[in-house]
Amino acid sequence: MKPARSFASDNNAGIHPQVLRAIAAANRGHTVGYGDDPYTESAIRNFKKHFGRDADVYIVFNGTAANCLGLKAITRSYEAVICAEAAHIYSDECGAPEAFTGCKLIPIKAPDGKLTVDSAATAYHGIGDQHHVQPRVISITQSTEMGTVYKPHEVRALASFAHEREMFLHMDGARLSNAAAALGLNLRQATRDLGVDVLSFGGTKNGLMAAEAVLFFERARVADFLYLRKQGMQLASKMRFISAQLDTLLSNDLWLKSAQHANRMARLLERELASIPRVKIVHKVEANGVFAKIPRAAIAKIMKRYFFYVWDEEESVVRWMCSFDTTESDVKEFAKFVARSV
Amino acid sequence: MKPARSFASDNNAGIHPQVLRAIAAANRGHTVGYGDDPYTESAIRNFKKHFGRDADVYIVFNGTAANCLGLKAITRSYEAVICAEAAHIYSDECGAPEAFTGCKLIPIKAPDGKLTVDSAATAYHGIGDQHHVQPRVISITQSTEMGTVYKPHEVRALASFAHEREMFLHMDGARLSNAAAALGLNLRQATRDLGVDVLSFGGTKNGLMAAEAVLFFERARVADFLYLRKQGMQLASKMRFISAQLDTLLSNDLWLKSAQHANRMARLLERELASIPRVKIVHKVEANGVFAKIPRAAIAKIMKRYFFYVWDEEESVVRWMCSFDTTESDVKEFAKFVARSV
Amino acid sequence: MKPARSFASDNNAGIHPQVLRAIAAANRGHTVGYGDDPYTESAIRNFKKHFGRDADVYIVFNGTAANCLGLKAITRSYEAVICAEAAHIYSDECGAPEAFTGCKLIPIKAPDGKLTVDSAATAYHGIGDQHHVQPRVISITQSTEMGTVYKPHEVRALASFAHEREMFLHMDGARLSNAAAALGLNLRQATRDLGVDVLSFGGTKNGLMAAEAVLFFERARVADFLYLRKQGMQLASKMRFISAQLDTLLSNDLWLKSAQHANRMARLLERELASIPRVKIVHKVEANGVFAKIPRAAIAKIMKRYFFYVWDEEESVVRWMCSFDTTESDVKEFAKFVARSV
Amino acid sequence: MKPARSFASDNNAGIHPQVLRAIAAANRGHTVGYGDDPYTESAIRNFKKHFGRDADVYIVFNGTAANCLGLKAITRSYEAVICAEAAHIYSDECGAPEAFTGCKLIPIKAPDGKLTVDSAATAYHGIGDQHHVQPRVISITQSTEMGTVYKPHEVRALASFAHEREMFLHMDGARLSNAAAALGLNLRQATRDLGVDVLSFGGTKNGLMAAEAVLFFERARVADFLYLRKQGMQLASKMRFISAQLDTLLSNDLWLKSAQHANRMARLLERELASIPRVKIVHKVEANGVFAKIPRAAIAKIMKRYFFYVWDEEESVVRWMCSFDTTESDVKEFAKFVARSV
Repeated sequence: MKPARSFASDNNAGIHPQVLRAIAAANRGHTVGYGDDPYTESAIRNFKKHFGRDADVYIVFNGTAANCLGLKAITRSYEAVICAEAAHIYSDECGAPEAFTGCKLIPIKAPDGKLTVDSAATAYHGIGDQHHVQPRVISITQSTEMGTVYKPHEVRALASFAHEREMFLHMDGARLSNAAAALGLNLRQATRDLGVDVLSFGGTKNGLMAAEAVLFFERARVADFLYLRKQGMQLASKMRFISAQLDTLLSNDLWLKSAQHANRMARLLERELASIPRVKIVHKVEANGVFAKIPRAAIAKIMKRYFFYVWDEEESVVRWMCSFDTTESDVKEFAKFVARSV
Repeated sequence: MKPARSFASDNNAGIHPQVLRAIAAANRGHTVGYGDDPYTESAIRNFKKHFGRDADVYIVFNGTAANCLGLKAITRSYEAVICAEAAHIYSDECGAPEAFTGCKLIPIKAPDGKLTVDSAATAYHGIGDQHHVQPRVISITQSTEMGTVYKPHEVRALASFAHEREMFLHMDGARLSNAAAALGLNLRQATRDLGVDVLSFGGTKNGLMAAEAVLFFERARVADFLYLRKQGMQLASKMRFISAQLDTLLSNDLWLKSAQHANRMARLLERELASIPRVKIVHKVEANGVFAKIPRAAIAKIMKRYFFYVWDEEESVVRWMCSFDTTESDVKEFAKFVARSV
Repeated sequence: MKPARSFASDNNAGIHPQVLRAIAAANRGHTVGYGDDPYTESAIRNFKKHFGRDADVYIVFNGTAANCLGLKAITRSYEAVICAEAAHIYSDECGAPEAFTGCKLIPIKAPDGKLTVDSAATAYHGIGDQHHVQPRVISITQSTEMGTVYKPHEVRALASFAHEREMFLHMDGARLSNAAAALGLNLRQATRDLGVDVLSFGGTKNGLMAAEAVLFFERARVADFLYLRKQGMQLASKMRFISAQLDTLLSNDLWLKSAQHANRMARLLERELASIPRVKIVHKVEANGVFAKIPRAAIAKIMKRYFFYVWDEEESVVRWMCSFDTTESDVKEFAKFVARSV
Repeated sequence: MKPARSFASDNNAGIHPQVLRAIAAANRGHTVGYGDDPYTESAIRNFKKHFGRDADVYIVFNGTAANCLGLKAITRSYEAVICAEAAHIYSDECGAPEAFTGCKLIPIKAPDGKLTVDSAATAYHGIGDQHHVQPRVISITQSTEMGTVYKPHEVRALASFAHEREMFLHMDGARLSNAAAALGLNLRQATRDLGVDVLSFGGTKNGLMAAEAVLFFERARVADFLYLRKQGMQLASKMRFISAQLDTLLSNDLWLKSAQHANRMARLLERELASIPRVKIVHKVEANGVFAKIPRAAIAKIMKRYFFYVWDEEESVVRWMCSFDTTESDVKEFAKFVARSV
């Protein structure tokens, strides 16, 4: 029998029970549609509590949309977005950012998933030259697609680099909670206070059903996002049910507890794997993901019981993710199974 | 105190209890993301039961997306979509169809919201002329934005007109259930069997939380919709929870019962209003909406207690919608309040 | 034998001899490409002489591009452009404006091709409503596609209407010279001084080979048009040859003399046709075009010798255009042939 | 005094005298606009003589447009184009291909400007995965941006690789003539016969004023390019003057003679530079460009007299191009001046 929980992705997990209860609680009578309801109001108030009163918050369905709409809001079609080659926006959104914004995305090699000022700088050229796209945004993912976490000073350095050049710093925070938990920072400290201008705030991978948000801080505030969201096909009519999810996540530290737990499980998994001879952890385990190089033959064996993604076919590197509902015994059983399989 | 339920819109209603239970039931352990899960499989099987085995079904978050993605799948950017001036795609989607497909939408005057072969034909010209967009789709809304319902022979005539000219017939079925219920047809009879090629199947306005689908029949089948959906920012990672909603709606006639009920409430409202001297019903009440011309001064008075939309400021026409959860006493109380206010 | 010159379109004419000489004169040695050459400098200086020092001028290949790039420069994709139904941008550019800008074009009935404040106002609604495109530009064609000419006070009224609502007034000036000549105004008086914010300045229809320009005045000045032009595929590498054409047109009143002549020929044609019983002029002949209702059977007969366009198949209305090189005897012969044919 | 001719770019040269004469010769009376004229007919006949009767030929204004429109014709927005990092479409068109097609361009490191099957293959992955763009086109530039030339077997190998995977091979032939001349092949042998499916045929860099064409062969033939061209703002109204240029280029081996000459001048320049100690040629001189590493201080000195482009600031590599009108004494004087300056 397949185990109830896999290590394939934090989005293979379901809805946190508190969140499901909040959806049910919001299912009372009629409310005005499209965001003009008390649940959305409350969620936005909650966001502002975390990120500052003057943060602009917009709720959308999913992460690809949060990224694309956020980027479109701050660019014109001849501008460019500098990002890591492994960035979700570059590699896993089927070209949505290019198609939706018209912008070029400039991929930077980044083995651990992290841009640096030096590597980003290689893409900053052709400024003022009409033949070249004009870099306008640096986009980083926190925590990264490789399960690593930018240090505060690294984010700050990228923000400074960007701001000195009239660029914005965008953060794809699909797993922001895991990063903030790992860094021991609150949400504002992990984003805005480090110079992030536009944030894709992730909820789905941290126990929500389907709910994300786009936040704009000082520099990047835009007046017309409501239109971009509607035109971007991301305006929920029964928005209360999306908002209630986010409101719950941001209440009573649920975001933090869930993220801390997932991170802890990943570190536990790392420890359990450490003793297995032919398994080699290839990226620092700093958030809720574990990347391991394992014998090619073992992949199929493990897959028979646990579905997961091969990250790099050639290098035989696999990705295992923990989520809010991963249990210690899940981890131990899995590690045992891996041990047996390699 | 404000009443629990308004007549503002069927999307001001919440989630049908059975649907909410289905979401909760799907919240069990991990499943693969992005649609490769048993809930989605079941929903698609259910769709095929209703629409035919060879129907292609794709699940998306909302109606604007269903329309835009469906249209993009069957057009090139220099083609055009013929639709009624009041069509949702033309008037209420913030230009999403134009921006997403590149196509021109050609608006046709249609006082009751219904295109006819004659009126659609006025937009069919410039064929083969490189200076002109090439009409490729006729798009109709069923039931219409005015609460009217196309008769089967009317849809069939538009389909024939379209097919004879190598055009497709697209149906915005945000309220298809209400139309099918009104016509006494099953879902297939009300769409595909009348010549509809691409269908936006609406769930949200009929008691779902947020779930719609795009269906392609024979002529319009496309091989690449998965990419268009992902690039269109409409691929849900935890799709099981969207699918479970649709699966429930399509089971045990829930779609039909809910739609029949809403339609019945609209007819009841029509009857109740009939006796009020200064209220004039302006469109046939054929589905779940009632459009009435009322004294301008009454609007504000009624609004104090019941939120709703003024449809035509100039003509002082308002729109009142019934939904799956509207009760007889809701209708009667509301009608009484209207009577007192005019 | 076919006559050397037809009345089909002013773009069926060739290159004015002075312009051709200017192209030849510019063909001397090497110059830097992409606009950084003395011919372009001179052309732009000349434009500024006509339109004011602080006008921003950008040279492009053709009129569709001038319109689309000009509109894109001042809009975001969720905004809308109000224009006459017969506007070139709406009816004759194969949807290029929609596809390139993402914006909706809102067509207004205008039998004589002219928008009015009242008719434009019907499209100004839904302001601030996230479901609706936001009108941002009023676009007028001067002289119009029907050969009529806006009076100065009519343009001014539209400009005021637009500016009071934070909209821009765009003028498609493919035949601006003909209009200015007709009005007895210089180029600045006929545009900027009336409140035009963005101008597509037409050269091709007034004796150039292929050369147009986009001009921005005060309110509408944009910083990034160089990128939009390049991304819009309209940056000529050997720009000197495009610039030399425009420079010549703007020198020694060539624009004016050519336009006056074409207008005069149209009035002559009008007079000659006046005496033909079954030919009815349907629009005021105010610039260089004559629109006439003629017996359907005559169309084919005349076409045998003279190619031209049927403007309205149903109404049997045809369009005859005069150009810089139309001669009096061309007109008289043609009128005679028409007389014989009807 | 500045010399009449620089080595900055082949598009800094003017119009070949025969071409200018052809423009003048086409300036006779009226012809129908938009391509339905005898000059265009003749040009297309001429193209077919060179490329085969069943080649589809469309004339456009410039090279960026030829590339973008050609690519759009054979792609859907979720597809991708594999190209060298230095490809004009990737680096010098201000993001026009992405914005116009919606597609991602995948850049491949290629120090000499040439893709190989091995390097292209690294971008061929994620096939059938809805999260990934789908590679659909391999685009190569012939001769390359580095002045190198693909060998026939190299093009053939890329074509086979592409065709085996249902991809197209696109050739940016802005300098196709130089490549064909270098290879001793005729135009068809250098393109179609090697498996090229879509060709941007360059004229401007080989002595035309502004004229390019898009050609489609067997596999890639599309039915709707007329609309794409018009919507792409590339339909010339007085097309005869664009066509006459191309017609002349393709007559009496003008394309070949001009290209052979430019190539010869580049080889002469290479030889002259060879004897200068501190100048190092960095790419094979196979067409009409010479890339040299020179002392940084010399750049400014030479620039005082001759304008040109620094290709790689960091490496101090400059680009010198020869054109149809470069003379032997131009080359020798220039080489002498370089020698003095380094």
